[in-house]
Amino acid sequence: MPISPGFFAGRDLTGLARDLRDGRVTATALTERALAAAEALGPELNAFVTVDAAGALKAARQADEELAAGTDRGPLHGLPVAVKDLIMVAGLPATMGSRHFARYVPDTDAACVTRLRAAGAVIVGKTTTHEFAYGPTGDRSANGPSRNPVDPARMSGGSSGGSAAAVAAGIVPLAIGTDTGGSVRIPAALCGIAGFKPAYGAIPADGVFPLSASYDHVGVLAGGAEDCLIAYRCLGGEVSGDGSPAVGWVDPAGLFDGDARVTAAVRALLGDAAEVRLPEGFAGEVWETYTVVQSCETAAVHAGRLERAPELFDAEVLERLRAASEVPGWRYVRALESRRRLAGMVETLFGRHDVLAMPTVPITAPLIDQREVELDGRSVAVRPALLALTSPWNVLGLPALTVPAGTVAGLPVGLQLVCRPGDEARLFTAAARLAPAALG
Amino acid sequence: MPISPGFFAGRDLTGLARDLRDGRVTATALTERALAAAEALGPELNAFVTVDAAGALKAARQADEELAAGTDRGPLHGLPVAVKDLIMVAGLPATMGSRHFARYVPDTDAACVTRLRAAGAVIVGKTTTHEFAYGPTGDRSANGPSRNPVDPARMSGGSSGGSAAAVAAGIVPLAIGTDTGGSVRIPAALCGIAGFKPAYGAIPADGVFPLSASYDHVGVLAGGAEDCLIAYRCLGGEVSGDGSPAVGWVDPAGLFDGDARVTAAVRALLGDAAEVRLPEGFAGEVWETYTVVQSCETAAVHAGRLERAPELFDAEVLERLRAASEVPGWRYVRALESRRRLAGMVETLFGRHDVLAMPTVPITAPLIDQREVELDGRSVAVRPALLALTSPWNVLGLPALTVPAGTVAGLPVGLQLVCRPGDEARLFTAAARLAPAALG
Repeated sequence: MPISPGFFAGRDLTGLARDLRDGRVTATALTERALAAAEALGPELNAFVTVDAAGALKAARQADEELAAGTDRGPLHGLPVAVKDLIMVAGLPATMGSRHFARYVPDTDAACVTRLRAAGAVIVGKTTTHEFAYGPTGDRSANGPSRNPVDPARMSGGSSGGSAAAVAAGIVPLAIGTDTGGSVRIPAALCGIAGFKPAYGAIPADGVFPLSASYDHVGVLAGGAEDCLIAYRCLGGEVSGDGSPAVGWVDPAGLFDGDARVTAAVRALLGDAAEVRLPEGFAGEVWETYTVVQSCETAAVHAGRLERAPELFDAEVLERLRAASEVPGWRYVRALESRRRLAGMVETLFGRHDVLAMPTVPITAPLIDQREVELDGRSVAVRPALLALTSPWNVLGLPALTVPAGTVAGLPVGLQLVCRPGDEARLFTAAARLAPAALG
Repeated sequence: MPISPGFFAGRDLTGLARDLRDGRVTATALTERALAAAEALGPELNAFVTVDAAGALKAARQADEELAAGTDRGPLHGLPVAVKDLIMVAGLPATMGSRHFARYVPDTDAACVTRLRAAGAVIVGKTTTHEFAYGPTGDRSANGPSRNPVDPARMSGGSSGGSAAAVAAGIVPLAIGTDTGGSVRIPAALCGIAGFKPAYGAIPADGVFPLSASYDHVGVLAGGAEDCLIAYRCLGGEVSGDGSPAVGWVDPAGLFDGDARVTAAVRALLGDAAEVRLPEGFAGEVWETYTVVQSCETAAVHAGRLERAPELFDAEVLERLRAASEVPGWRYVRALESRRRLAGMVETLFGRHDVLAMPTVPITAPLIDQREVELDGRSVAVRPALLALTSPWNVLGLPALTVPAGTVAGLPVGLQLVCRPGDEARLFTAAARLAPAALG
């Protein structure tokens, strides 16, 4: 049963910014709305690890004073934002979703947080992450699973599960997450909101706890694509140019044999888009490359903790880390070679299209802790299903956006749009054309 | 008992080039000298896998005709050169020292061979390599061990063992090798000649069978440093500038506890050079970085052969490859991080010195197949001893030269000089100042 949404549900950044400047609302009032919703929905959704009421109200008052004095920091000025608990905010605990960091409080902001503050955003708190971001389900964290606002018995998806739940529940209009194999886009799709993972390196990852340095991306989650674009620009993303995007359809079956209803719901939005064929061998090579590089890099991050205090990890995370520690180095070397080869396939992949379209996730949100789902009498493993359509674009470092694309049996489905770096303007134009139909 | 040296022993490239241009000798006659020596010393040293008499004589006649017609290709014009069997020469077998490539004949030249030909050099044949260059001893090859001309019961060192033996025995005045952890410098030092490994990437490795792509360098072996410089320039190396080099002494005990007599012999050449202290933790980190990266990259190169036809490898090489295949990927990831950190230590390492000096190898040549040596009642493993003082400069990608530094108990010892990329002129100046004393 869905929760009663907070104030920000259905409100976009542009409207809020206008209301602020027109004097219909204050940053302080908006922050109080966010704090009230966080408190009201806290137990039900577990979206937040830390809510910083004092810090947020102080920042909001400052934002109000600045606006009154004629200082306008732009579209995020005075608006509440939530930050994933893997991203450092000076003075606030950063647990990384792990008992290993139960008492850790960083004293400097991550680069993306510095940019948020410079843009006048009000940081209301830290959102639940899958432990060390190592899982797309969002249900293994030292502070418990984040829950899906559409049905709290279901997973939010992850690893930026709390960020997605907080936006989808209307607690905040914007949240920041990280995306290594889909950790922004997967929970955004499962919770029915938008999420954008920029090109590799477009937003600096300094001050973000690493999962897999080759693939880690900072990303944004909001109600719609337009708000993702606004936030991306405020974080330093460059988007220029325009033109009419040629959108090609990628049959997700070429990557993963998922839920046919999800495919049909997303395909229906594409009209007469031509089908793009994936290059021969692409699916297998990209998955091997993703899993091997991620496993070795994640195991390298945690080798010390695995040796000193394995008991502090969640049991499932521990089991996966141990398996990751055993992946031999020669496979990593080969995977790096594959990554370079795959990067060379990008032009072939796009051909005469500017934007590739496909479902974001080939299934709808499973139940919390569910690890297998039934599809047409087949049993399908949840984790590879969640990652299958998002992780290729981390391997290739391409910008990728998910926007709401309706529902299947009452559960949200996402349309994923992918472009080449530099083509972000076309990506967002495509989203604006395709998504309203889905929301209508 | 030493062999009777061939014609080129004690002759340098400059003198040979002068004789050619003065009409005192022809390229054809020089090539015949090389072919005769290769034949005479073949059984004793096993320096060559393939001698290409027909091809060499044809190239020599062409060189003579060109000179007669006024076309002068420079200092290597008409001079015989030997090429390691891991480096492709079009139309000649390239066994890589392995039964896996018993019948392989490449149809294009390696980039460095193209440059040799353009410089007018006469390629007389392919020299014995340790199987796939995977060993510093030079005594495990499908065509048998290469032997040390100073005492054929002893190893040449490797992996460019045949190239070192061919030069040291006076069969050719110049040979080309590869150096991944010391494979040019180790056999040069053990056989009593000079060898130069340039900066990483200074000579392209295209057409060289890989051992460990992060560390593979093409290098040159000759009687003295001046000839290495001439050959390096002909291969495209840029050496400019001059100035009086400040040489610092690195006590090899900071890297490996070797033969005190070797240290003393080399130290004696340095006069009052100041001692350079290695940064804290340098020795351990550089060795871990070297072994882990090399193991994983080598195992990646050979994974297919290891699975399909392990029985074709030499038993010791097979055992080492199997161990390399089990090094976990997370250690490779950490080693790449260490490599970047170590690269950042270069300025600290050099401080106010331009050139670092130390022994090339901390022991003298062991017997063929010997894997442990006695030093002051201690048992020392041969392989890590051979690599200990050369491999750090592969990890850091620095130019490194070995020059003859006298003998200990009748066996050659090498002085190794290391500089920063761009400082090669100072490196060779230092060699010219220090080495004659050793040879005198």
